[in-house]
Amino acid sequence: MLSVSIVGGSGFGGGELLRLLLSHPHVEVRQVTSRAHLGEYVYQVHPNLRKRTQLKFINPAELGPVDVLFLALPHGESQKKINDYAVLASKIVDLSADFRLKDADMYEKWYGKPHAAPDWLSKFVYGLPELHRSEIATANYVSGIGCNATASNLALLPLIKSDLIELFDPIIIEVKVGSSESGAEGNSGSNHAERANVIRTFSSFGHRHTAEVIQEMSVKDVSLTMTAVDLVRGVLATAHARVKPGVVTKDLWKAYRTAANENPFIRVVKEQRGIYRVPEPKIVTGSNYADIGFELDETSGHVVSMCAIDNLMKGASGTALQCMNLMMGWDEMTGLDFPGLHPI
Amino acid sequence: MLSVSIVGGSGFGGGELLRLLLSHPHVEVRQVTSRAHLGEYVYQVHPNLRKRTQLKFINPAELGPVDVLFLALPHGESQKKINDYAVLASKIVDLSADFRLKDADMYEKWYGKPHAAPDWLSKFVYGLPELHRSEIATANYVSGIGCNATASNLALLPLIKSDLIELFDPIIIEVKVGSSESGAEGNSGSNHAERANVIRTFSSFGHRHTAEVIQEMSVKDVSLTMTAVDLVRGVLATAHARVKPGVVTKDLWKAYRTAANENPFIRVVKEQRGIYRVPEPKIVTGSNYADIGFELDETSGHVVSMCAIDNLMKGASGTALQCMNLMMGWDEMTGLDFPGLHPI
Amino acid sequence: MLSVSIVGGSGFGGGELLRLLLSHPHVEVRQVTSRAHLGEYVYQVHPNLRKRTQLKFINPAELGPVDVLFLALPHGESQKKINDYAVLASKIVDLSADFRLKDADMYEKWYGKPHAAPDWLSKFVYGLPELHRSEIATANYVSGIGCNATASNLALLPLIKSDLIELFDPIIIEVKVGSSESGAEGNSGSNHAERANVIRTFSSFGHRHTAEVIQEMSVKDVSLTMTAVDLVRGVLATAHARVKPGVVTKDLWKAYRTAANENPFIRVVKEQRGIYRVPEPKIVTGSNYADIGFELDETSGHVVSMCAIDNLMKGASGTALQCMNLMMGWDEMTGLDFPGLHPI
Amino acid sequence: MLSVSIVGGSGFGGGELLRLLLSHPHVEVRQVTSRAHLGEYVYQVHPNLRKRTQLKFINPAELGPVDVLFLALPHGESQKKINDYAVLASKIVDLSADFRLKDADMYEKWYGKPHAAPDWLSKFVYGLPELHRSEIATANYVSGIGCNATASNLALLPLIKSDLIELFDPIIIEVKVGSSESGAEGNSGSNHAERANVIRTFSSFGHRHTAEVIQEMSVKDVSLTMTAVDLVRGVLATAHARVKPGVVTKDLWKAYRTAANENPFIRVVKEQRGIYRVPEPKIVTGSNYADIGFELDETSGHVVSMCAIDNLMKGASGTALQCMNLMMGWDEMTGLDFPGLHPI
Repeated sequence: MLSVSIVGGSGFGGGELLRLLLSHPHVEVRQVTSRAHLGEYVYQVHPNLRKRTQLKFINPAELGPVDVLFLALPHGESQKKINDYAVLASKIVDLSADFRLKDADMYEKWYGKPHAAPDWLSKFVYGLPELHRSEIATANYVSGIGCNATASNLALLPLIKSDLIELFDPIIIEVKVGSSESGAEGNSGSNHAERANVIRTFSSFGHRHTAEVIQEMSVKDVSLTMTAVDLVRGVLATAHARVKPGVVTKDLWKAYRTAANENPFIRVVKEQRGIYRVPEPKIVTGSNYADIGFELDETSGHVVSMCAIDNLMKGASGTALQCMNLMMGWDEMTGLDFPGLHPI
Repeated sequence: MLSVSIVGGSGFGGGELLRLLLSHPHVEVRQVTSRAHLGEYVYQVHPNLRKRTQLKFINPAELGPVDVLFLALPHGESQKKINDYAVLASKIVDLSADFRLKDADMYEKWYGKPHAAPDWLSKFVYGLPELHRSEIATANYVSGIGCNATASNLALLPLIKSDLIELFDPIIIEVKVGSSESGAEGNSGSNHAERANVIRTFSSFGHRHTAEVIQEMSVKDVSLTMTAVDLVRGVLATAHARVKPGVVTKDLWKAYRTAANENPFIRVVKEQRGIYRVPEPKIVTGSNYADIGFELDETSGHVVSMCAIDNLMKGASGTALQCMNLMMGWDEMTGLDFPGLHPI
Repeated sequence: MLSVSIVGGSGFGGGELLRLLLSHPHVEVRQVTSRAHLGEYVYQVHPNLRKRTQLKFINPAELGPVDVLFLALPHGESQKKINDYAVLASKIVDLSADFRLKDADMYEKWYGKPHAAPDWLSKFVYGLPELHRSEIATANYVSGIGCNATASNLALLPLIKSDLIELFDPIIIEVKVGSSESGAEGNSGSNHAERANVIRTFSSFGHRHTAEVIQEMSVKDVSLTMTAVDLVRGVLATAHARVKPGVVTKDLWKAYRTAANENPFIRVVKEQRGIYRVPEPKIVTGSNYADIGFELDETSGHVVSMCAIDNLMKGASGTALQCMNLMMGWDEMTGLDFPGLHPI
Repeated sequence: MLSVSIVGGSGFGGGELLRLLLSHPHVEVRQVTSRAHLGEYVYQVHPNLRKRTQLKFINPAELGPVDVLFLALPHGESQKKINDYAVLASKIVDLSADFRLKDADMYEKWYGKPHAAPDWLSKFVYGLPELHRSEIATANYVSGIGCNATASNLALLPLIKSDLIELFDPIIIEVKVGSSESGAEGNSGSNHAERANVIRTFSSFGHRHTAEVIQEMSVKDVSLTMTAVDLVRGVLATAHARVKPGVVTKDLWKAYRTAANENPFIRVVKEQRGIYRVPEPKIVTGSNYADIGFELDETSGHVVSMCAIDNLMKGASGTALQCMNLMMGWDEMTGLDFPGLHPI
């Protein structure tokens, strides 16, 4: 059995990761830390885990060595103590934003302050298997991924990998998200009476996850417009781009099918009938699937590409587990086979 | 024009009251206080009021004299300074729980500490026109009402006024409520991701509003069980009681129709067809109506009586305005004629 | 008193219009038709109107002459009998799509069949006062407006009226909508279990309302991408465009403020603090306001312009009433002063 | 591998069952029928199953013999053809209401018409393992269970099994439910715009599931009051009863803990701190758990007992699978280990 611990287990990402690890057939969870909930049973904070574990939250200072250490801390925390964590485990998967960007200047530009451990940036592989599967398989340090960046990157993946769109034209991505993105702590606008029933654009430009799209997709002119809607889990990224001259619908079909064939968690959703004709976050809730689909206006060349994920699963903890599977040489779907619910 | 001011205008109740007062044909709003939002335009906190008023929140110390002063402070605050407020206005309508109970001992029992101004308790009339219309019309001091108490009291009103139920049998009231009840400040459980999709019983027994039901309905054995559901505004109280021997459905019809005839804001909802057959909070959203209905099992004598209100309107600010209308001798529906929306 | 009747009063648009007309100080509602609900009280279908009217739905054949006739029929019905309706009233306001487009060929292109009364197209004024106030004031026949078109047109209005954007560049409009858009009849996907929690893109291109944007804004290359979210009422249109060289943020401020100054129902929402910093459909629920706002990336020239409306009010019945006010020479806000609710 | 087929696989219950069977380690799903969706891929109706199965819906006439046949038909259908189905499989699990009641007269009383196969009633075991574990283990025919009955029965189970309440006093059960209870077909009131935001009491007395509570709990005077709230999956049953003289809180603790110890899917939720202090349907979404909890007013003897389940899992398909496990001698949790999600 692989021994693992989680640093920062009381947040939504940490809780989801704990749930997945507890059900994983080859893993034993040793310790979970939380300063805010020190001494409490983890099921008091994550009530779905009642009768599943008797683990209690411990102080980070009590952490012992393990095979794989997961860091699920607030952004900015991992980089401060990465040297200490590296002593505890030879393999680390960090879910935060700290080691996603390869370039320290880019980090400073998007996060507004210098990186505390810039020499570590090159040691981490960007943790999205659909982009870096083979590197992850041999890596010791794997970074987290931004949930909105992931939906955006997977919406663009088939278009860019098959070289179907104009990379120098503006790419406009509209991202609609659920409330679990803003975390368990909440803020003034997350109070239910204020947050229910919203269609609230909280960032027209400049969302930090844009940096991950620029880095991973090698696109020049891309913007993410972020809008919160009344939903707990889920992200839908809708990318508007322009195809290269001569590209037609069947080229897109081929690119999307290839993406699905090469990646077990990617599914193409493009139906002519029924209720569910396009990717919908609702349907991937709790699963690690990324559903992708598209529509092309052949006259104008305007292509709309969509990707729906569960921000806590494919957008965070599910992908982290998928990376662990790859790092250990296991089937990447191990422990990630929950197909989601219908209806929900 | 009647001059009025609001003390504590940044909460949900204060904002709703301000909206109503600004649209009232005979009223001029002079000042609105808020320590937390001092100096801000009220429309920055209550965005529905944009382009409706240029009022800014002021410090309570800047309050000047007015004809009617509304107190919309957190519970426990009004009683501390009631003597000061009384200097500013000869008529006061308080929306808090401070002056609802007539008996200081009862107050201490339900609120857990002694009342700070027990001599004022007898000066206030309990501010529910459906129970105390004529007293309110001649009162200078009118208390607030609990929203859950109001739904419960109006569910019981026809049964008790027409002497149809056994007052010594247990009366079980199940109250389902929306999130605006817990206020603009929120708490750990009100974060949207935790509060959405809930059916959460936050009080099985002993909710403070029970005291208002006991006081106003003269019932001995009554319990309120409070359950939060996924809704912003609305309360549905469902009272289970036992009718006296011989009481049949037509007796209930008569009692309910009488209640509706005597009270402009009470409507009886009891249809055999269509979607809306029973009282529903959804349909009274934004209105001052209290929709009531019932079902009787003639075999067992078990009667289910329902009342649906908007907790911020009929359950708080709407009724406060209704009281002001009565105090001034105006039609009690003045400024309260919004019928609600369908659908919503 | 102005006498009016509504043809087709059992749908959501007809019900909303009826509510508004019943509260209008200068109007008397004579008759409301519905084949499906013939003989029922209107409050059985629109339960918010209980205790507000004793009107029953009648057969269209029973309609008598009135001053103004409102048509709230399903699309395609008004054009079939417009000559008959014109006999009943010298002034007609039609809420359907039948008389919105000025060009019969354009109608056929977007609606897929020839128009049944093409000679009537030129008699109708497009019923959006913010675009055609003076023509509406002297018109006898006023068309309806598409709710999504209206949100889109008002998002573009300040940009286009002040000549700030490149009209030949693609304009991408992402529109997020609530469920009341799909009507009271529903369809297989509108069953609550399937429709709740959705972020469902039901039209990537080619939504019929696009035609109204093309016609009214004189833009060449514009697309509407329509996404349904979990909300009953509301539309948010987010338009992405490119400003002309040299245009900076203060130019946009000026254009938006001008729009708000010239139109009583337009408000600019662009705050630096608080919860409500941008236009949100939630806040205009039940009101006739159109809240607009923008964000400019001065480096790239990419401007995001937003408009939030209530699809049944500003997007349909509210604007129809506003047109009636203008046609009668009354203040256009008469009967439309409800400011919306906070929270909701 | 156990071969199974599902008759009626396009409804919510059938889809959920199919999802569970496809993931079960010892089961092979052979055929799934649906007249309405004949020839379609099951993933077109149940989109969560995309990339999980290539099964298509077949005509019931094409069904071949299997080890276990699951019937997921609308109520009233199974009883008509039970003799035909019995030819196809020696073991049958029926999810409908057809074989729940042991007494044909009771069936006729609650369902309004005579049973079509009364001789089969005694061959079926009532399919709730928490009540009939050993009988199910040796049964060939297992009935479905009502979701509301199950929440009610499990709320009462510890109280009645430990003989703690007065069985001749009225037991009032308030049940709050999500929209998936009303099925995939929907009805006029299930259109999202009408069904969202509701607190709608659709049955004050006389809900059919009451019969299952009377039969299984041997209670005399029990009523279920059914209220729909804005949620897709979930049931909360809140039972109000009176404890026998001398019963105190620790007696209840003992009874509830015993129920949890004896049943792997029962959990006791009764916390003094944190957000999740009581059973909540939200937290059991997608899982087979039944969370139970209670509160006792020792003065009056009034006990409130709550049970939260997912109506499609513990209230239908999950329990059906649990029964299959027991019938085959497997661990009853096999294939049912999904713990639910937090948050959701």
